[in-house]
Amino acid sequence: MRDVAAAAGVSLKTVSRVVNGEDFVRPDTAERVHSAIARLGFQRNDLARTLRGGGRTRSIGLIIEDVANPFYSQIARGVEDVARAGGRLVISGSSDEDPARELLLIRSLCERRVDGLLIVPSETGDPRLRAELIAGTPAVFLDRPPGPGGPADTEPRNDTVPPNDTVLIDNVGGARTAVEHLLAHGHRRIACLVDLPEIFTARQRHQGYLEALAANGVPADPTLVRTGRHDVRGAGHAMTELLALPDPPTAVFAGNNLLTVGALRAIGAAGTRVALVGFDDFELADLLATPVTVVAHEPADMGRQAAHLLEARIRGDARPPARILLPTRLIVRGSGEIPPSQG
Amino acid sequence: MRDVAAAAGVSLKTVSRVVNGEDFVRPDTAERVHSAIARLGFQRNDLARTLRGGGRTRSIGLIIEDVANPFYSQIARGVEDVARAGGRLVISGSSDEDPARELLLIRSLCERRVDGLLIVPSETGDPRLRAELIAGTPAVFLDRPPGPGGPADTEPRNDTVPPNDTVLIDNVGGARTAVEHLLAHGHRRIACLVDLPEIFTARQRHQGYLEALAANGVPADPTLVRTGRHDVRGAGHAMTELLALPDPPTAVFAGNNLLTVGALRAIGAAGTRVALVGFDDFELADLLATPVTVVAHEPADMGRQAAHLLEARIRGDARPPARILLPTRLIVRGSGEIPPSQG
Repeated sequence: MRDVAAAAGVSLKTVSRVVNGEDFVRPDTAERVHSAIARLGFQRNDLARTLRGGGRTRSIGLIIEDVANPFYSQIARGVEDVARAGGRLVISGSSDEDPARELLLIRSLCERRVDGLLIVPSETGDPRLRAELIAGTPAVFLDRPPGPGGPADTEPRNDTVPPNDTVLIDNVGGARTAVEHLLAHGHRRIACLVDLPEIFTARQRHQGYLEALAANGVPADPTLVRTGRHDVRGAGHAMTELLALPDPPTAVFAGNNLLTVGALRAIGAAGTRVALVGFDDFELADLLATPVTVVAHEPADMGRQAAHLLEARIRGDARPPARILLPTRLIVRGSGEIPPSQG
Repeated sequence: MRDVAAAAGVSLKTVSRVVNGEDFVRPDTAERVHSAIARLGFQRNDLARTLRGGGRTRSIGLIIEDVANPFYSQIARGVEDVARAGGRLVISGSSDEDPARELLLIRSLCERRVDGLLIVPSETGDPRLRAELIAGTPAVFLDRPPGPGGPADTEPRNDTVPPNDTVLIDNVGGARTAVEHLLAHGHRRIACLVDLPEIFTARQRHQGYLEALAANGVPADPTLVRTGRHDVRGAGHAMTELLALPDPPTAVFAGNNLLTVGALRAIGAAGTRVALVGFDDFELADLLATPVTVVAHEPADMGRQAAHLLEARIRGDARPPARILLPTRLIVRGSGEIPPSQG
């Protein structure tokens, strides 16, 4: 440790603080100490012993649905950046929306005594069983609240499970913005593609769609709504069906990045022009044949904010649970501005 | 443990095998045992004690450059699928091509006594220092070999560091295929965008470009080659410069997914038609205004193969290190078939 202190040009106490992950060390100082450790080949067991002294494992668990989905990999990147600044590694796993898999991951992570958990909860499991497994480990929820919401509540009922910090997107507001944009361009027959109805964000976005229609005096036509579409292929099939209706929609609201891609493929295959606004921005949306208008938000920022909340909890923050609602913004690119007459 | 055995309908010995991660348990049986454990709320300490008996932490470390890049997030997904089947969690980290960061990650993962390591090595660090840190932990390298290669060797010299299993893409062959496709469509002035010259894959793809020209008797023009482009923006600037040349290229070979996107943005902004073949397939390549011809491979498969090799090493496989070369295939979509006359 003395060598490390000398090489980093800091006191022995500072080295000890850094390896124990205590507060009050400037990030650049911590970085200098870590570099010196790496350079000097600081004895592994020595460091491990020091770390154990802190009673923490300097790691956090991250459970997402699928790291191969850019929405989640951007969340993971945001989480990692904050965890790194706090000197923690990220142990991550994909739940694939399978509640048994999610519980196994939580259990495995708690067995490894992670300092805290960041969870995008699956929706079909038992929230009390999850809460039981988590008990005692700081946890923050992302994208979806930990308990069952009402069918489309903006503030879901969490009375069956203990409250936790939660970071959500303004799903209802974003969906309303998307659909009102299509209404403002003269559309009245607007289709709606959303994910599985048990998924909180899908219910909220469906609700935003309905609210926008109601607020503008446009009757909702249930034949234009396709719920339960969870991937590109499912969305494509649904869109193809919609385009084959006797009175097809002139516009579509696609409830997430995968559903937008599926709808675009089906519209392209049908060779027709249909207005589209998608929820979630995605790479290359601006380079498509018709650039895609989206309701955008920042998944990496969701990851960062959740990781900051978790870091505070790990360090002893005992304030009541926070709920952060991240804003969305409409990005106009072309697909959302196609008038009905061209439909 | 008896409750778990009863609930899963297996013997006590099978439960023990599963929680200890031994071989000879069928995946569906293991899944049943894990489900039973999750259902029954198997005591955490009990399980932890059992796990410690095995002397393994049931985790592997994964070091990639950036999880937010779809190339790496797909690798991560492939790794996770294989690790899951072996009952291991993945602790991952992004090195950002920074050798100090990479060494810190390796050190942190070894301190946590991961069962093994999967590494996309950064290129500017000291391979011997890395080897020293890894010593004793099974490790497999992905996408790049662990030691310094020659400027463009297909079989880089690894004599300075101990050999490890390595899974690579056929970079030279893929790049040759791409450039020969452009040559076959009549192009003679073909630009080349590649990543930082210290990166093995960038050197190999540049080499493939040169080999294709030489094999077809086309003199290489150094003014058409832009190396050292590491992101979308850098590639865009390079492409804009190339298009402004007095005798601009009629075609371009883009050396990876990010460089392809950058080139496409610059070509779009210039309002010109230039043939393009990109290395790496990417989501929506088929939906762009001019669908993009690419040299494709399977990043998830690279992750899976590397994870399988690592699993074998963890279980004691002592055969000489393997080097797997993954094939590429040309996907013709339109951008690579634009003739020079339209340039």
